[in-house]
Amino acid sequence: MNLKLQTSNKIGIIGLGLIGGSLGLSLQEIGCKVYGVTNRTVTAERAKERKLANFVSTDPKILSDCDIVIIALPLDHLLNPDINLVNSLPPNAVITDVGSVKAPVLEIWQKLHPNFVPSHPMAGTNNSGVEAGIKDLFKGKPWVSTPDDQTNPQAIEIIHNLAISLGCKWILTDVNTHDQAVALISHLPVIVSAALLDAASNSKDKSIIDLSISLASSGFIDTTRVGGGNPELGMSMAKHNYSAIIESLNSYQESFQQFKELIVSKKWEDVLDKLKKTNSSRAEFLNN
Amino acid sequence: MNLKLQTSNKIGIIGLGLIGGSLGLSLQEIGCKVYGVTNRTVTAERAKERKLANFVSTDPKILSDCDIVIIALPLDHLLNPDINLVNSLPPNAVITDVGSVKAPVLEIWQKLHPNFVPSHPMAGTNNSGVEAGIKDLFKGKPWVSTPDDQTNPQAIEIIHNLAISLGCKWILTDVNTHDQAVALISHLPVIVSAALLDAASNSKDKSIIDLSISLASSGFIDTTRVGGGNPELGMSMAKHNYSAIIESLNSYQESFQQFKELIVSKKWEDVLDKLKKTNSSRAEFLNN
Repeated sequence: MNLKLQTSNKIGIIGLGLIGGSLGLSLQEIGCKVYGVTNRTVTAERAKERKLANFVSTDPKILSDCDIVIIALPLDHLLNPDINLVNSLPPNAVITDVGSVKAPVLEIWQKLHPNFVPSHPMAGTNNSGVEAGIKDLFKGKPWVSTPDDQTNPQAIEIIHNLAISLGCKWILTDVNTHDQAVALISHLPVIVSAALLDAASNSKDKSIIDLSISLASSGFIDTTRVGGGNPELGMSMAKHNYSAIIESLNSYQESFQQFKELIVSKKWEDVLDKLKKTNSSRAEFLNN
Repeated sequence: MNLKLQTSNKIGIIGLGLIGGSLGLSLQEIGCKVYGVTNRTVTAERAKERKLANFVSTDPKILSDCDIVIIALPLDHLLNPDINLVNSLPPNAVITDVGSVKAPVLEIWQKLHPNFVPSHPMAGTNNSGVEAGIKDLFKGKPWVSTPDDQTNPQAIEIIHNLAISLGCKWILTDVNTHDQAVALISHLPVIVSAALLDAASNSKDKSIIDLSISLASSGFIDTTRVGGGNPELGMSMAKHNYSAIIESLNSYQESFQQFKELIVSKKWEDVLDKLKKTNSSRAEFLNN
């Protein structure tokens, strides 16, 4: 196994949707040979037309010579992998994934392959499927990896090189810190935002709903974007990051309740103080 | 009192911040003579330089010949008006305001002037003060008016003409429907979004906060925009729309609790159903 990512490296990608397809385009651009595997023939044809990989097949046997294989499947498939797929992974290759939750992935995949490195390259658009992949999706974006003491250090180094070759910011952290952080900044916002849409659509008075729809402007539209997004994705993130999302739901309820109590008891100076704090903490999130 | 807004009309604007200054620029463009009143000499000088009105003074006596006077002051000043200002309003003019909450405004101002028409032109940017006014801020935006049976119908018609002359969408509704709708789409989102910032910044584990800050991307940034906005404005909206905001806080808590219970009890099909509903209801809000 080479420590450096060579431009002659053969890289397999399983799944050529938004993440897999974008990786395929970017990896070809830095000179890798990319072997793409899709589930359906019609997707393979389209992936070939879009040049998402140098070779595309529905047969995972094309991965046999790969140095690195990236599993870019949705969480449900990643966590319940097809046995043929697992058997087709070369034993000496480094295997990584792109799942947005890491504890269950690490638990399952560490047993399935000796060189598995858990990854979460953090980039996206609102699109999905074989038409969604775009060049440069990952440039400047975080590539988080959450290995533990059983993870092969050489394999980590290879994925590290892959990430920086794509222009990503490499972040090493432990799996629980990762899963709790993404619960707070990515999974909790979906529920917070969806509940706002639910509340605004459920007034008993139809004239209030109609007027709300007429008057809603950028503030409401921005706050509800993620809650009105892909329903399967929102559900899947909560399902697979169960304990971290419960913890973040509880901590949100506490924060909300504190605001509500200050408002109910008309403690306007305290409401103002809290809003000044959230105003400065958002600045920190913006300047990351 | 003329029923039609003549291009020769003399229009007074009290306060030349974002809303007042933008109205001044747009009204001059459609041929009105604009008389602007500011609180401080230095603001008056800058307003003159920026040509926010044809005449600018700190003395409200310049309003004596105006046909219409628009009070474009922050809610706190609008609800506690200076007695000199009130006395300087011409008795035959039509008076309107731009406040984002209407029940307390109507209650106070109906007693102060016989031709008061409550208005809420709904447009904004993130800027405020004498530098903030821009042309065309109101084009295509809703201009809501919430008169009651004591409001002079001729005065309503004059403000109606003013609104459509500026290219606004005229919406007549009752004061309670207005205040409850803006609580849901404008005031509640501030608290929902601020509580998310509060929860994300209050983890006991510093490494989770640090990683959250590194990883936060567009989803978190959009969901927290209004909660990290102008603290005085957020507080003031809650303070002056008290009963409607309490009602919307309660209804939000109920919606959030329903989501949480479905997640805690792992009813994933029900979570998916609810997210499908919020996905379609956001589409309604977008297509308004």
